[in-house]
Amino acid sequence: MAGSTTPELVAAVSTAGGLGQIGAGYMDGDKTRQAITDVQRLTDKPFAVNLFISEYPEATEDEITSMSRKLNPYREQVGLETFDDVPELSFDTTKHFDEQIDILIDMNVPICSFTFGVPSDATISKLKQAHITLIGTATTVKEAIVLDEKGVDIIIAQGSEAGGHRGTFLGKAHEGLIGTMSLVPQVVDNVSVPVIAAGGIMDSRGIVASLSLGAEGVQLGTAFLTLNESGAKDVHKSAILKATEDETTVTNVFSGKSARGIRNLFINEMSKADIDILPYPLQNQLTNPIRKAAGAKGNVDILHLWCGQSPRLSQRDSTEHFMEKLIKEVNEKM
Amino acid sequence: MAGSTTPELVAAVSTAGGLGQIGAGYMDGDKTRQAITDVQRLTDKPFAVNLFISEYPEATEDEITSMSRKLNPYREQVGLETFDDVPELSFDTTKHFDEQIDILIDMNVPICSFTFGVPSDATISKLKQAHITLIGTATTVKEAIVLDEKGVDIIIAQGSEAGGHRGTFLGKAHEGLIGTMSLVPQVVDNVSVPVIAAGGIMDSRGIVASLSLGAEGVQLGTAFLTLNESGAKDVHKSAILKATEDETTVTNVFSGKSARGIRNLFINEMSKADIDILPYPLQNQLTNPIRKAAGAKGNVDILHLWCGQSPRLSQRDSTEHFMEKLIKEVNEKM
Repeated sequence: MAGSTTPELVAAVSTAGGLGQIGAGYMDGDKTRQAITDVQRLTDKPFAVNLFISEYPEATEDEITSMSRKLNPYREQVGLETFDDVPELSFDTTKHFDEQIDILIDMNVPICSFTFGVPSDATISKLKQAHITLIGTATTVKEAIVLDEKGVDIIIAQGSEAGGHRGTFLGKAHEGLIGTMSLVPQVVDNVSVPVIAAGGIMDSRGIVASLSLGAEGVQLGTAFLTLNESGAKDVHKSAILKATEDETTVTNVFSGKSARGIRNLFINEMSKADIDILPYPLQNQLTNPIRKAAGAKGNVDILHLWCGQSPRLSQRDSTEHFMEKLIKEVNEKM
Repeated sequence: MAGSTTPELVAAVSTAGGLGQIGAGYMDGDKTRQAITDVQRLTDKPFAVNLFISEYPEATEDEITSMSRKLNPYREQVGLETFDDVPELSFDTTKHFDEQIDILIDMNVPICSFTFGVPSDATISKLKQAHITLIGTATTVKEAIVLDEKGVDIIIAQGSEAGGHRGTFLGKAHEGLIGTMSLVPQVVDNVSVPVIAAGGIMDSRGIVASLSLGAEGVQLGTAFLTLNESGAKDVHKSAILKATEDETTVTNVFSGKSARGIRNLFINEMSKADIDILPYPLQNQLTNPIRKAAGAKGNVDILHLWCGQSPRLSQRDSTEHFMEKLIKEVNEKM
């Protein structure tokens, strides 16, 4: 949800009785502070902040320049200037992360969730001393066991149906594509902490099913993307609303990390291109201005259209009404 | 389950209150008749026969010979004679199918399920006149709608977690890899007949979850493979029992059709080999003697180790005890 949460969405989810999460993975310190301030102004209910675990990418100047040049035709298509020289990218992704941790503690955020791995022991201990609840993301039982051993309080089991970035941090990307129906009970059986199911859950049927599998909570992503308060671009919302379950794929061409989205021209062309995709966050930094411009122009050929495998269940609605209906239906079924 | 069902397994499932299915996809008329006779001798409860819809493979003599030669090292490994001449394969897969249909009608089999597509209108009408209940297999909503329109009585929604062959018959194989959590509610919303959930379901948690998603029944495969009455080779059973959820993959190297199994040497090498896999059933016919010999020798490097994404939930048990426990647990939870 990084890039698509708004303070209004997060606050509406929390106010309705859910746990809204600020997708702060791409934010720097100032933006993180601002987002927390905005949510705190809108609700007095608990909410969480989701952070990306730092990456230490390796890529040569040649590889970066080749990829940048490869992207020139897309720059042209969205009206950006093309260039052939070495682009300036930031390899250091730890700076913002450490700053974000301090901000969370300083601003009394009660819950912090992580994607892409495990925080350092020092960070975990710092957050625990501040009585912040820690939520980790696992895509395999192996990852869940590591998170459990490291002392996180809750584990999200992210099934292969999930839209957006895969949380996979051990083994190869394809090994972390386990369906929610398989992943949840196997994680539940192997960890000592509560499990939250994620992946393909869009309505009360998916919630009740997840609880039946042994989860104690659920995480919805795509279901929120099309709601009024979501920060997703209108063309992205429309693409989800008209998509079918067989149109998504898992790709690393946008960010350098595997993520599920609706297949489009950029995915098709870049997947076949005779060039290695740069590691995250380098690929992300290179494609980001192009995708921003594509979004502004309503160009769905080049935009990252994150979406899970249940787009037929997506709907336009207010977050308040969506949450109210969801909670009512689940209560009736339990 | 084709190749791994035994009359004892099918009868035990039906006797316990489930619907046992004879996996007759690879059987000729005589073997089909024998299997039905054996099951009818063991139980008076209803059971089903699962058939493969006919294929019309295209491959040149050169392609077939190349693949056959490529397999020589594996023949050697399992103690079979190698050969370089053109192998004799049967392109005609319709003969057995039509014969099987007549046998089902003749022997009063009450239920017939299909994988890999839709029977012809003539076959459907013939089976319906004989009051046989028809079950089709879908891996996407599109396929489910086609089955519904063609008049099948029940639709199996096969999620991507499922072990063994994918039922995909429209579009590309990768488009039919939808997680059970996503597939079931979207199929339920778009067809007029009852839906059976399949894929990753191994215990009462998966069954109750599937019913919550809107399914009216469930299909278990891998859960039965390791039971005492299963016809799976001992080395196959052992491989499932010690596998983890991240060790399976979807591959066409064994049969020419996509199927989920535990990654092994044969999958790894053939996936990377510079040669096109032949279409089903040609690839299947070529690898079959090799895999049989591998199974007899306990060679798991070359055997097809079909397995879904929940192997950690597999167990050794008698079918009778497994079914009794399952039904008791589901009843307690509902």
